[in-house]
Amino acid sequence: MCSEKATSKFKQLRRSYGFDEVAIVPGDITINPEQTNTDFQIGDFTFPIPIVTSAMDSVVDVNFAILLGKLGGLAVLNLDGIQARYENPAEILAEIARTPDAEVTALMQKVYTEPVKENLVGDRVRAIKKAGVVCAISLIPASTKRLSPVVAEAGADILVVQSTVTSARHISRSYRGLIFSEMLKQIPMPIIVGNCVSYSACLELMRTGISGVLVGVGPGAACTSRQVLGLGVPQITATIDCAAARDEYHRETGKYVPIITDGGFHKGGDVCKAVAAGADAVMLGSNLAQAKEAPGLGYHWGMSHPHPALPRGTRIKVGTTGTLERILLGPTSITDGSQNLVGALRTAMGFCGAATIREMHEAEMVIAPAITTEGKYWQMAQRH
Amino acid sequence: MCSEKATSKFKQLRRSYGFDEVAIVPGDITINPEQTNTDFQIGDFTFPIPIVTSAMDSVVDVNFAILLGKLGGLAVLNLDGIQARYENPAEILAEIARTPDAEVTALMQKVYTEPVKENLVGDRVRAIKKAGVVCAISLIPASTKRLSPVVAEAGADILVVQSTVTSARHISRSYRGLIFSEMLKQIPMPIIVGNCVSYSACLELMRTGISGVLVGVGPGAACTSRQVLGLGVPQITATIDCAAARDEYHRETGKYVPIITDGGFHKGGDVCKAVAAGADAVMLGSNLAQAKEAPGLGYHWGMSHPHPALPRGTRIKVGTTGTLERILLGPTSITDGSQNLVGALRTAMGFCGAATIREMHEAEMVIAPAITTEGKYWQMAQRH
Amino acid sequence: MCSEKATSKFKQLRRSYGFDEVAIVPGDITINPEQTNTDFQIGDFTFPIPIVTSAMDSVVDVNFAILLGKLGGLAVLNLDGIQARYENPAEILAEIARTPDAEVTALMQKVYTEPVKENLVGDRVRAIKKAGVVCAISLIPASTKRLSPVVAEAGADILVVQSTVTSARHISRSYRGLIFSEMLKQIPMPIIVGNCVSYSACLELMRTGISGVLVGVGPGAACTSRQVLGLGVPQITATIDCAAARDEYHRETGKYVPIITDGGFHKGGDVCKAVAAGADAVMLGSNLAQAKEAPGLGYHWGMSHPHPALPRGTRIKVGTTGTLERILLGPTSITDGSQNLVGALRTAMGFCGAATIREMHEAEMVIAPAITTEGKYWQMAQRH
Amino acid sequence: MCSEKATSKFKQLRRSYGFDEVAIVPGDITINPEQTNTDFQIGDFTFPIPIVTSAMDSVVDVNFAILLGKLGGLAVLNLDGIQARYENPAEILAEIARTPDAEVTALMQKVYTEPVKENLVGDRVRAIKKAGVVCAISLIPASTKRLSPVVAEAGADILVVQSTVTSARHISRSYRGLIFSEMLKQIPMPIIVGNCVSYSACLELMRTGISGVLVGVGPGAACTSRQVLGLGVPQITATIDCAAARDEYHRETGKYVPIITDGGFHKGGDVCKAVAAGADAVMLGSNLAQAKEAPGLGYHWGMSHPHPALPRGTRIKVGTTGTLERILLGPTSITDGSQNLVGALRTAMGFCGAATIREMHEAEMVIAPAITTEGKYWQMAQRH
Repeated sequence: MCSEKATSKFKQLRRSYGFDEVAIVPGDITINPEQTNTDFQIGDFTFPIPIVTSAMDSVVDVNFAILLGKLGGLAVLNLDGIQARYENPAEILAEIARTPDAEVTALMQKVYTEPVKENLVGDRVRAIKKAGVVCAISLIPASTKRLSPVVAEAGADILVVQSTVTSARHISRSYRGLIFSEMLKQIPMPIIVGNCVSYSACLELMRTGISGVLVGVGPGAACTSRQVLGLGVPQITATIDCAAARDEYHRETGKYVPIITDGGFHKGGDVCKAVAAGADAVMLGSNLAQAKEAPGLGYHWGMSHPHPALPRGTRIKVGTTGTLERILLGPTSITDGSQNLVGALRTAMGFCGAATIREMHEAEMVIAPAITTEGKYWQMAQRH
Repeated sequence: MCSEKATSKFKQLRRSYGFDEVAIVPGDITINPEQTNTDFQIGDFTFPIPIVTSAMDSVVDVNFAILLGKLGGLAVLNLDGIQARYENPAEILAEIARTPDAEVTALMQKVYTEPVKENLVGDRVRAIKKAGVVCAISLIPASTKRLSPVVAEAGADILVVQSTVTSARHISRSYRGLIFSEMLKQIPMPIIVGNCVSYSACLELMRTGISGVLVGVGPGAACTSRQVLGLGVPQITATIDCAAARDEYHRETGKYVPIITDGGFHKGGDVCKAVAAGADAVMLGSNLAQAKEAPGLGYHWGMSHPHPALPRGTRIKVGTTGTLERILLGPTSITDGSQNLVGALRTAMGFCGAATIREMHEAEMVIAPAITTEGKYWQMAQRH
Repeated sequence: MCSEKATSKFKQLRRSYGFDEVAIVPGDITINPEQTNTDFQIGDFTFPIPIVTSAMDSVVDVNFAILLGKLGGLAVLNLDGIQARYENPAEILAEIARTPDAEVTALMQKVYTEPVKENLVGDRVRAIKKAGVVCAISLIPASTKRLSPVVAEAGADILVVQSTVTSARHISRSYRGLIFSEMLKQIPMPIIVGNCVSYSACLELMRTGISGVLVGVGPGAACTSRQVLGLGVPQITATIDCAAARDEYHRETGKYVPIITDGGFHKGGDVCKAVAAGADAVMLGSNLAQAKEAPGLGYHWGMSHPHPALPRGTRIKVGTTGTLERILLGPTSITDGSQNLVGALRTAMGFCGAATIREMHEAEMVIAPAITTEGKYWQMAQRH
Repeated sequence: MCSEKATSKFKQLRRSYGFDEVAIVPGDITINPEQTNTDFQIGDFTFPIPIVTSAMDSVVDVNFAILLGKLGGLAVLNLDGIQARYENPAEILAEIARTPDAEVTALMQKVYTEPVKENLVGDRVRAIKKAGVVCAISLIPASTKRLSPVVAEAGADILVVQSTVTSARHISRSYRGLIFSEMLKQIPMPIIVGNCVSYSACLELMRTGISGVLVGVGPGAACTSRQVLGLGVPQITATIDCAAARDEYHRETGKYVPIITDGGFHKGGDVCKAVAAGADAVMLGSNLAQAKEAPGLGYHWGMSHPHPALPRGTRIKVGTTGTLERILLGPTSITDGSQNLVGALRTAMGFCGAATIREMHEAEMVIAPAITTEGKYWQMAQRH
């Protein structure tokens, strides 16, 4: 106390936590994993599995969106990317996949100078809708005004508007920023907005009337935002803070606006930790790019929301590890948590006695640092 | 204070500690190691050394159980494993030991499809009892109801029922969970149950009337439970919390139910730390698999309580480092703490002035992180 | 509370933080980076970009000082170095650059035995002034009295007096220390003094009437001061403490004396963090030695304030990575934060809604440790 | 508060700190290093430099003891080692130095079975006294009663009695422990006793009337005590706690009993940190074994206080880096802090404005973890 008062003239720093620094405590009651319910909702749409894709060309095309929709998750199609620029995107994607490393940056730069075409934007949306699944699409802020009527007319269900940091109030002399409350009047569909990381920024975004918030800015120490700008909040703290905003907004208005933790995932268990910290769903990229059905053909590139300091187009080989169904629902013989993500979540919920995602938000968590030393003779003893 | 109130709308995280993060402080009084008493009790049975084995095929067979019993510890024979499936388990164990790495998984899968035989279950128990030592056996929850009458009739003394996370209340629509209070009426022997890690879960388990609790879920950052499910509590905190439950239950009822810390051990000193944190005994696996008399013949495999996400049967070469007696009681010239475990515990108790395990529970501990940098010129100076 | 009282007879340690341990939290309002203002002031001089150079021979010569001045920053010319010892310093610098590693120490020792010449001191100052930019020069304490009239007469604008640790009160029997208040009466120019790291030392220095304070002693665990003397404070805490002193002095006197964080920078984002912690500007060395225009020709050596325990002259190859303009203002395709430093600062300020450096001092920061584990399948997911 | 009360049924752990986790903060006043005084006292003896040797055969023989005494420090001759077992110890030491690694353990075992001879004990003491320096000798507890009259008669000045953990009250049925208060009546010289690490244990030891306390049990995470027994306290916390005991004892009795921090040193700056934490002197081993005059001839072995779990005699090559004078007083061109230890201490004292060791005890310290990441472009910037 005394020391706190004595130091009050100094800037105060709050401790924050990332995935690697926490763990979930099993509950006093346990429940059969089969009896858990992992539903989450955006507006009036309900999704049985709380997995949302990053809006990346290497992850989502029309087929992938339909497949994930049928499995119960939500794919977000990037309408600023290859799918909206080329009549035959598969051809371009195959070319990217077969181009040697030394030439791929030049190819990428060429590929993304082709303009976005409004007719393709409409076609993609209609193709997904025709399959009977919910269609979510992503637009960059600069083209939101122009393209959102097109996607609305084509029948898109959910709009995702994403940039590195999004606030409800943006100050600019040179252009008029997105005013979400205005946008919501013009566009007759739920909007997911992001990214943000703090209680107050998240609460302000929710008060504009949007239907979902993406959580995550510079989540890891190795993130570009953290390295270049010094900016970021580890994901457990960001999720806890935004979950508190969601709960406050729920108390205020009776409306429950889900938060989706986006980025910072290292291990399979991190999905469980995000949900225990308060996430209603998680947004995944590279893990899904490893699916047999992913359009990247074993490669992954692009940022969900690039900014000028970041050159676009670094292509990374992630390989193909299994079908999307196996990655999400198993069965698997891989024990690193990269497959059967939903099964792992159900098991963790079972061990915490949580029948629903919102009950899982109540699970106890501890701070449990990741650092361990290796012991030669004792290594097996810790394997459970 | 103020800051705590201000943040009370946010989920709170409690700091937890593992073995590597703490150390024991020597006492104001010291005592000769020879004068310390390391007894612990399960029901009416007293064991002079507080070492319990993991119920693993590579660690315990009838001979090992008799040997450890005579040395003063408690071996737990796994009656869901090779000993209960094969008339001549030594033959199978030798086959596993001589099979090349590439073929061993296939062999394991075959070995464990052979059914458990009730007559072998009875034979094993009788063989141990005939040698005059306490007989503890482990059953998986699914076969507990069927086999516990058999083991009781054969004369088993202690039953161990173990799964990754055990709670006193399990919810299931598809099957009726184990109700420990009912089981205790049917089975006339002390039951050790686990695993759990929290104060409340441990207290609830004790209130069912069981005679011992195994402590440990995902103790280390590299544990599968922690990586895949995000679940776990470092062992010092888990032990401190369950010890508090034991003490509370003791205050409430006058009954002292021991807790046994299971897993997470890296170094020999971790056994001392577990006891100082409140453990009445420790459960060891791979370290004992290195004994000359271990049935695994220098190999170790299997989990004490596998779950579906974990493929069974990874075989690890641990080697044979000495007799069981040397590992437990010395003498030894090895300084990494993997031998003379009980001698090390007695020495630590002596330095803390603790004449008994329960006095050792009162030893002061400090948080003392494991991270150190290496100093070229100074390295020797720290060697005591 | 109780525990604090109970331990009050023990020496208390305050937790301190370095760059790697903290991160900046985005604000509730965002602002266009183009609308941010990064001005800082020394005395009556205003600099549009808050970058000050270390006074090192490998970083600053007359041309570099003019160039940086025109770009908006402040170069500090070392008048104890090569520029003040040789008529034609470029010749010496080229010789250092082309000398093999094995011979360079001997060369360095020879180079720095040539005496400083008063006429060259004057010439260098006049050359910089002739170009119309602000001229800051550095003198070592021992020659301050002798040379400060010379530089004043030549028209220098700002004097930098720097040693490892500087206090307002130095006790010596053998020589009379610098009394800054006396010096200020004799020398008609703003003086920047350093280095210091604590609230009270900084406040005392400001009360002598000086115009700027350099912050930083042994900032990193690998610093020589820290390793040899055990001395140092991590830069975030040092900056926060000295910023509090500046604010206190401002409240007391109405005078705003800027603080300049010097040293400890690892990544580009650290500049943003220093400013968010309270710095008005940052002092950079090796990063600027990489500029095409740097006199070190791709090499870097020397300390801004060597002390006897440190042998002078270790030459390190840093390479040439781009023009000074590109390093400071971009554009860049390098994503490690070593280029476009001012652009990164503006972007960070934009994300925090800070229109000025002093508004950026109000940005929220969190403690967010740098340690992370690498996840094979999940690595891309964290890249934003 | 609330959370503390809520958790009071749980064992509490206090945070402790090692050398790598702290740093010294420069003072508001600075002082010329030449004007600092580093005296410390044992009984009525005053030593100008606060360096005590470990009582090891590889560090101290008669010549080394005389040399260190003349330089101002205090060597402790081990009278349980080679010097007291062999008429011509130099011969034995040379044999150890030239024996190959594979054969040295066998040699060591043979060397240390030769009995200690009372006449040699006396000879060694007399040889040191003849040179006119203070003579400190070390006896193991088991031979203290037998040999202390011999050393007293020969004129020894200071007796060191050391074991891993020493308490004022030792309980044993098999033998009667050392009662320091009784010993002090029999032996007419100051006694230094150790090792201990806690406030209460140190205070009890001081109350027996002894003249110095050695501080340090299992100081580092890699220490054998810590690894095998789980026992130990990092040295900064141990030193702070024992310094508080010294100050309390001083308040109670007016007697100032110095504490000597022994072990855990990694870097040269650690000596400065130990003193700032409250040490009156430091005990060094391997660093001094590197002196040209050390009897180990570039090798180092043995523990100052071995215990049964530790096999004696591991020989480590430490090399010979310079004269003892250079290691203690410089000058040096080595920047890792392994040379000019006293010069570094004086410089640190100067930066803290501390004229004496006891003033240095008042220096402010911060917790400043050792972990840093390496930055490619920024590495030079942190080098001061």
